[in-house]
Amino acid sequence: MYVIGTGPGDPRHLTLFARNVLASAEVVFGYGPYLDRIASLLGSAEVRPSRMTREVERVTRAVETALSGRVTAIVSGGDPGIYAMAGLVFEVCKQRKITTVAAGTEAAAADALPVAVIPGVPALSAGAARLGAPLMHDFAAISLSDLLTPWETIEKRIEAAAEADFVIVLYNPKSKRRSWQLHAACTLIARHRSPETPVGIVANAMRENETVTLTSLQELPDAPVDMQTTVFIGNSGSFQLDGFLVTPRGYGNKYDLGE
Amino acid sequence: MYVIGTGPGDPRHLTLFARNVLASAEVVFGYGPYLDRIASLLGSAEVRPSRMTREVERVTRAVETALSGRVTAIVSGGDPGIYAMAGLVFEVCKQRKITTVAAGTEAAAADALPVAVIPGVPALSAGAARLGAPLMHDFAAISLSDLLTPWETIEKRIEAAAEADFVIVLYNPKSKRRSWQLHAACTLIARHRSPETPVGIVANAMRENETVTLTSLQELPDAPVDMQTTVFIGNSGSFQLDGFLVTPRGYGNKYDLGE
Repeated sequence: MYVIGTGPGDPRHLTLFARNVLASAEVVFGYGPYLDRIASLLGSAEVRPSRMTREVERVTRAVETALSGRVTAIVSGGDPGIYAMAGLVFEVCKQRKITTVAAGTEAAAADALPVAVIPGVPALSAGAARLGAPLMHDFAAISLSDLLTPWETIEKRIEAAAEADFVIVLYNPKSKRRSWQLHAACTLIARHRSPETPVGIVANAMRENETVTLTSLQELPDAPVDMQTTVFIGNSGSFQLDGFLVTPRGYGNKYDLGE
Repeated sequence: MYVIGTGPGDPRHLTLFARNVLASAEVVFGYGPYLDRIASLLGSAEVRPSRMTREVERVTRAVETALSGRVTAIVSGGDPGIYAMAGLVFEVCKQRKITTVAAGTEAAAADALPVAVIPGVPALSAGAARLGAPLMHDFAAISLSDLLTPWETIEKRIEAAAEADFVIVLYNPKSKRRSWQLHAACTLIARHRSPETPVGIVANAMRENETVTLTSLQELPDAPVDMQTTVFIGNSGSFQLDGFLVTPRGYGNKYDLGE
């Protein structure tokens, strides 16, 4: 059972390792549009696309297929280990009392399901690359989706990250049905950080319809943001430079950058 | 000027895009051992290795080489955008009043230095993949190196992340000259999290001499940790399963995992 990250979307941003595994898989599961983007890499695999809201069903079927003895891959956009499918594979196996084992160590447990997570370039890396260098110092990744997490928990994390001067990366900042959370997050962060704090917004990083926007914390609530967007809020030292967003790696100037 | 992430080390974990850029570069700068690992990908480039502590000098020479008109790449292990070389390129350009521009938009600024950051699989993704799925929920990345950051700032971030129940990823947890910080971090985190909190330790993820260790917060200070290690401290919901470290994606059970 392989859990594979396809990176930002363009097949050129998959790793060679992920490409090789996809080419050798017998059955590949995933969200339809993600599978479409990597169709050229799928070899002769049976392709099993599913809809966005069907994650549990998708993972359950993938696990069952893998247990039947076929080489099975389930793909995630970005990195499968960050807010993605890897966890659900283990949660489903736990619930169904299926023993898992790290792939490559099968000999130790003959009847266990071998699982390998193959990392990909996460959305936070693809977005950061387009912005320049916002993640040069400590950062916190926070999802604004309150479908599975109480808003009070999310709120507490936003405030803690803002107060401790983390660069903040917002996943799932807004959807058609969730529109007030981004505004609420900005209000919380503004208690601890200047309204001029630089902010970078990247939609569809490294694929079709990519947009990169630089703005400020005070302008963020009205900026163009949707589910395809990752938002980067600078720390107190972050600055804009020639259209890039940069967080310096040091506080103070312990290193000499030359004249 | 390309700033390229080589991922965890094994050339199979580079993206095709990064491989293509490396193959076409005329001059490649980087830390010697990182360049050795990807030697097979460097085509006919002039290779300019440097020592670990020479980052500013390395970046300055790379910028000067790029300005001279040669296709120049500087490589980082992991992702160049996370605690790595991308930021220093912009800091050096700012200090030296060199205008930068996103590569591909050169036409807009004829005398500016075009810069492209090419993301790679970061250490936190490679380590998480080996552990299973520790980063399924909000997480904070914190470097324990106090060479460029006051310990008071680091301390404040550790405590904020612990209190707000972030999964915590520790970069640079320990070196030969810095040995007390990991112990201090554990003491701070233990104020807010159970001593049995599961912890994953990954050294040399996805390259030679890889080791994966599962332990607990109370055992972490005495665990085998060095500069090649990334440490993952679970949140209050994280659990061990068959040798994996898993953070559930939801709080409560809003989704049905089947019987």
